[in-house]
Amino acid sequence: MKIIDLTHPVSQKMPVYPGTEPPIFEVGCSIEEDGFLEKKITFYSHTGTHIDAPAHLINTAKTLDLFPAQHFFGKAFQVNLSKKKIESIGISELKPHKEAIQQVDFLLIHTGWSQYWGEERYFRNFPVLSLEAANWLCMFNLKGVGIDTISADSEDSKEFPIHKVFLQRDIIIIENIANLTELPTDEFTFSCFPLKLQDADGSPVRAIAYL
Amino acid sequence: MKIIDLTHPVSQKMPVYPGTEPPIFEVGCSIEEDGFLEKKITFYSHTGTHIDAPAHLINTAKTLDLFPAQHFFGKAFQVNLSKKKIESIGISELKPHKEAIQQVDFLLIHTGWSQYWGEERYFRNFPVLSLEAANWLCMFNLKGVGIDTISADSEDSKEFPIHKVFLQRDIIIIENIANLTELPTDEFTFSCFPLKLQDADGSPVRAIAYL
Repeated sequence: MKIIDLTHPVSQKMPVYPGTEPPIFEVGCSIEEDGFLEKKITFYSHTGTHIDAPAHLINTAKTLDLFPAQHFFGKAFQVNLSKKKIESIGISELKPHKEAIQQVDFLLIHTGWSQYWGEERYFRNFPVLSLEAANWLCMFNLKGVGIDTISADSEDSKEFPIHKVFLQRDIIIIENIANLTELPTDEFTFSCFPLKLQDADGSPVRAIAYL
Repeated sequence: MKIIDLTHPVSQKMPVYPGTEPPIFEVGCSIEEDGFLEKKITFYSHTGTHIDAPAHLINTAKTLDLFPAQHFFGKAFQVNLSKKKIESIGISELKPHKEAIQQVDFLLIHTGWSQYWGEERYFRNFPVLSLEAANWLCMFNLKGVGIDTISADSEDSKEFPIHKVFLQRDIIIIENIANLTELPTDEFTFSCFPLKLQDADGSPVRAIAYL
């Protein structure tokens, strides 16, 4: 089985969501003083390639630790829109793939925007689903929707309507997906196991495709 | 495919390796003030169920981000010693399973010690491999060795000889494995994808068995 890593690296210089802080890596223990090397790491729960739990936006909704591990693994399909330059992804972009979407647990939306990771441009005018398209996706039996942008909602959104469409139905959102261009096929197996954090509103993950 | 979660929960009250600090969970952003909930989390890189990279103990050795993602996935076998009360696991405990070990990427050593997780006893007199047994395991082609205790070396060890046997050969070590009693079989598929941390001497993971 071939593994493709769909994850951006986590470092002190990585891009983070505007208003949050980049990770801090400190020396926790050292080989010289303690006999072993260990870092003390501080980061926000939505750093890099990460999952949004329903509780991220909805009071009293589910945290990731309340989902069974099974929820983070399954069949996946990528809708590849990277060659089109679309700002709003409508039902018409998704409908041709209806049969494939019906058969999977995860839909990954490949906009091509991850090419701007590390640039200021990454944070502005990135493609998002239309509200209609997000609602249309809810008729399937998806465990999660992933996208290769900083957010499922546009940067000027204050109410996060796309997030809420999915999260209120316990469909998790995976943001900042990387390396989708490395996938030789649109159908694959996918996992995004979060850290087992108590009351997790979100978690950085290693997003993985299995071929 | 059935998923079994081999991971201990991560919380502010969890047990941590003596001399290190438990995680700190702070409010990063709140729904009331920011429109979304986000934690600011601080933890040591070897918290809970985690991987030790070669660089954890050996200067200039490999960090986890230098391994391909493929290294963290593969066939696994558990040696179930939970019914025996052994302090030092010798070659004689492993040899009956030689054929199985030859065919896998990961060996998980099920000592039963995870039943003491959360008790003071977890940190003392836990079973470890003998130096001979660790060296014997190196004749196979293992990617990693996992164990359901706080450390691959005994608590009074200052030089970490068992760790070094494996780590100097780029065999990763997974510690604090949980829930091995839930495995209905000794042969399964296993993954332990670490966070994609720069210069990772270690990383908490979600350790997963696939049946």
